Amino acid sequence: METLRLAIAQINPVVGDLEGNVDLIRDLIEKVEHCDLAVFGEMSLTGYPLEDLLLKPGFIADNKNALNDLASMSGDCALVVGFADSDGENVYNSIAICHRGKIVGSYRKQNLPNVEVFDEVRNFSSGSEPLNLFFIGGVKIGFVICEDLWVPDGPVRGLVDGGAQLIIAVNGSPFHQGKQQERESLVNEISQKSNLPIAYVNLVGGQDELVFDGGSFITDSAGEVILRSSRFYESTIIADLSIEKNKTTESHLPVTEVSSTRNHEGRIDPSVAPTLKIYEELYLALMTATRDYVLKSGFHQVCLGLSGGIDSALVAAIASDALGPSNVTAVMMPSRYSSDHSLTDAEQLIENLGIASINFPIKEIHSTFSEQWALNLNEEIIGVTDENLQARIRGVLLMAFANANGWLVLTTGNKSEAAVGYSTLYGDTAGAYAVIKDVYKTGVYGLARWRNESVGNEIIPHSIIDKPPSAELRPDQRDDQSLPSYDILDPLLKSYIEGDRTRAELVEDGFDPKIVDEIVQLVDTSEYKRRQNPPGVRVTQKGFGRDRRLPLVNKYKG
Amino acid sequence: METLRLAIAQINPVVGDLEGNVDLIRDLIEKVEHCDLAVFGEMSLTGYPLEDLLLKPGFIADNKNALNDLASMSGDCALVVGFADSDGENVYNSIAICHRGKIVGSYRKQNLPNVEVFDEVRNFSSGSEPLNLFFIGGVKIGFVICEDLWVPDGPVRGLVDGGAQLIIAVNGSPFHQGKQQERESLVNEISQKSNLPIAYVNLVGGQDELVFDGGSFITDSAGEVILRSSRFYESTIIADLSIEKNKTTESHLPVTEVSSTRNHEGRIDPSVAPTLKIYEELYLALMTATRDYVLKSGFHQVCLGLSGGIDSALVAAIASDALGPSNVTAVMMPSRYSSDHSLTDAEQLIENLGIASINFPIKEIHSTFSEQWALNLNEEIIGVTDENLQARIRGVLLMAFANANGWLVLTTGNKSEAAVGYSTLYGDTAGAYAVIKDVYKTGVYGLARWRNESVGNEIIPHSIIDKPPSAELRPDQRDDQSLPSYDILDPLLKSYIEGDRTRAELVEDGFDPKIVDEIVQLVDTSEYKRRQNPPGVRVTQKGFGRDRRLPLVNKYKG
Repeated sequence: METLRLAIAQINPVVGDLEGNVDLIRDLIEKVEHCDLAVFGEMSLTGYPLEDLLLKPGFIADNKNALNDLASMSGDCALVVGFADSDGENVYNSIAICHRGKIVGSYRKQNLPNVEVFDEVRNFSSGSEPLNLFFIGGVKIGFVICEDLWVPDGPVRGLVDGGAQLIIAVNGSPFHQGKQQERESLVNEISQKSNLPIAYVNLVGGQDELVFDGGSFITDSAGEVILRSSRFYESTIIADLSIEKNKTTESHLPVTEVSSTRNHEGRIDPSVAPTLKIYEELYLALMTATRDYVLKSGFHQVCLGLSGGIDSALVAAIASDALGPSNVTAVMMPSRYSSDHSLTDAEQLIENLGIASINFPIKEIHSTFSEQWALNLNEEIIGVTDENLQARIRGVLLMAFANANGWLVLTTGNKSEAAVGYSTLYGDTAGAYAVIKDVYKTGVYGLARWRNESVGNEIIPHSIIDKPPSAELRPDQRDDQSLPSYDILDPLLKSYIEGDRTRAELVEDGFDPKIVDEIVQLVDTSEYKRRQNPPGVRVTQKGFGRDRRLPLVNKYKG
Repeated sequence: METLRLAIAQINPVVGDLEGNVDLIRDLIEKVEHCDLAVFGEMSLTGYPLEDLLLKPGFIADNKNALNDLASMSGDCALVVGFADSDGENVYNSIAICHRGKIVGSYRKQNLPNVEVFDEVRNFSSGSEPLNLFFIGGVKIGFVICEDLWVPDGPVRGLVDGGAQLIIAVNGSPFHQGKQQERESLVNEISQKSNLPIAYVNLVGGQDELVFDGGSFITDSAGEVILRSSRFYESTIIADLSIEKNKTTESHLPVTEVSSTRNHEGRIDPSVAPTLKIYEELYLALMTATRDYVLKSGFHQVCLGLSGGIDSALVAAIASDALGPSNVTAVMMPSRYSSDHSLTDAEQLIENLGIASINFPIKEIHSTFSEQWALNLNEEIIGVTDENLQARIRGVLLMAFANANGWLVLTTGNKSEAAVGYSTLYGDTAGAYAVIKDVYKTGVYGLARWRNESVGNEIIPHSIIDKPPSAELRPDQRDDQSLPSYDILDPLLKSYIEGDRTRAELVEDGFDPKIVDEIVQLVDTSEYKRRQNPPGVRVTQKGFGRDRRLPLVNKYKG
């Protein structure tokens, strides 16, 4: 048995912030100095994903300089950090192993995901160097990067067969619901098959439409999780791992000697963070993504329109939890069609959360638009045009508050609405970040209830949760006048959007043909709205945005 | 010598419109029946690019059924059409050769572009079948698809070495300025090297942010262009090609027998459409893209805000040429800061173009917003907040006109403005299609002058072209108060955006460091605006949108 003292450094780097990310890693060097090895996540030096920043040769050069700076600070503890390597022609998603002031080795990701939200073939070339092992703290370690782990006959197999005693996967793995179970189940299987411990190191934090949920973990050679970092928060866990001598006396792969066995003082047992329940996990994902989008963009305060409905109530709660109640302003903008209870409910929520508020009725502005319309066009403004007008007056006001105060606007539309286009472009969709754009309406209810239960207190008033949803843009309007009920709508949407089913297949699946026709057409003809919607965090297997890329002009009916 | 009667069918299919595209091709079958071969463009059956429509197994099945329908209509003239092939697991960008009611062969694209606007690795697998030739009308023909042609040791080489007498490249090649010269120069080189004639068949028409410019052509074995289809318009050119017997008596590649030499009546000489001048080509690109976006989306009429400035004047002219003057409504929305000459200039343009107009002053609405702001917030609305407010009132009105009348809104911002964020989100950027979003301001002047010269008449009043640009959102505002002059700004933007230069490299290139710092920061911090801008046609080597994919949260200063 060898004892390897390993630090799993689950950090939250910022894309493009080379200096800041170096600082972040350097600040941990002292803390991990007594370890054999400290592992940071994928592209930890640069942030991830970098997209077309990687097309700038100047950026690649700067990132290599930053790596050299960092390597020069490394001591007895080997550091493994992610960076963009290049050979002058191609760019590689890579890790460097730094030790005692030098870069002692590297590994280039071999399998590049180019599906869903990933465009790695666009921005990277595949590594194709022969595999090798690193002898660190007396243990032969094989490194891979993210997707490499998921490929059945990929480099993991080569490393295992080649004599590795421990596999370390360096990841930038974004969250979607159920993802942590998928990771742990995959790694469990590989551990069991290879009879080796595996360390899975992830990033944490939000980046545009992605949120990295951490949850770094280590399985023992039987596949049991013996260490787990917290989800969604930065953490550096240090643990002593007992590693079996491998059965074959020699490795088939070349071994880079880095450091031999050290005598460590005492023994540090790994800690295991608990798994999270569905809505807790989802709520933390939304909170983290929102917080990081706002703060990493250089803002601190946000505003949002609070209608008295459940969507904006939930977003207000998330924003308040993410940024602190003093950084959130809820704006009530009642129109002539707003109900009294909406205002009362909104006021109760504002009090419960302790956030700031503005009450700005839009009746007068709405009237002036109508009068000017009549005067200039000699006709009345009516119907959907008038409904959209109210939503757009609110959008204009929210943006004006944001402009005047240096706030960001959060939008409050959910995935069910975005899917069927039940929204007004430049109206309720106007803003910087769409917090719940990838949460179906039924999930919005679940989250609101969970938020109340989490504190055993009615933060979001039950009257908001219980009333029938309405846009209140005309007298007595209710969502179910335009749409099927959400418990029918949401499974259909999920199947059409995430399942890529066609109209005919959905009918085969047992959905009502009339509803299928109506909804498929609504989804298809709303693509133009979604294209101009603000970014928002992806929490399902297929979010709108970079994930589901459909043409705008598209006459396929199905 | 063999004589091959070839039809180059340069068509404008609609993405996803399987039925419509089959009709389009079928309507040509009679016209080409006396030919040996009729070649249609890449993915001509489905439209191109399909993006994630290709992830729907149901769509793939429907497209194969459509191909079978089409094949059953084929007669003595072999038809080559593009479609999405699949082997149950993978999807291929393919062509089928149809003859006498059957599919007699196919070819799968081997080289998949995954750069710039292309994501083909995401949506297709690479073909890897052994090459073969098709014996059609007595000539051994090798087929490739688009990118295959551009790869030095790709399939073209294999087909040439294998005994092809003619190479036919089936393309979906989108326009950017200078692209046609690039194509002809590449094909010239390949013809000369291989001593073979090459036919290059392209699509035509707009699809979202791309415009296919046609310009299909044939080079003889000396590399001379002997046939050229018109640019930007559908055309089917039939020509008799004299093909030399190949020097080797046998092919090294397998040959699929399709049809032998036919006796053709008379002789049809190829025609050669003239090349276009820079601004003529660019104007046609903008016109075609705008026309197709509007019509293919199922709309016929558009409106736009006409300020009296050059950008909106140019867009009005393009819209009028694309859709007909009776389908364009120019909306004048003067504020308290609009100058008299702006209104006069706008009215003159409206008269020159013969388009409809609305005059809707926004003073009253603007005043009501200001009064309500003071009343509810106890402060004045001032500065940029007030400038944005005016732009957003106009955005709200344009969208209301569009909603009330079933119009689309065209936006009028140019690339220089979009680059530095000199625009108001949800204000002047609100609309369905951004006609000149990829044209720098200096190009806008060039286009306006060309449009007048093209008819030898002052369509766009010279006072619009000659006056200093201004947003007129505060008294005596001029663009050059906020930005360097456009003849300094545009080359810098081009270098930063299209050249991927960093701040330091731009200074090395000789740009003023102070201006570089200012402009680079403006470009970087405006990414969030561009992300929510409407689509618009790409006419440069790097347009905003699907082409230049930068993170929103991005702290790289360079």
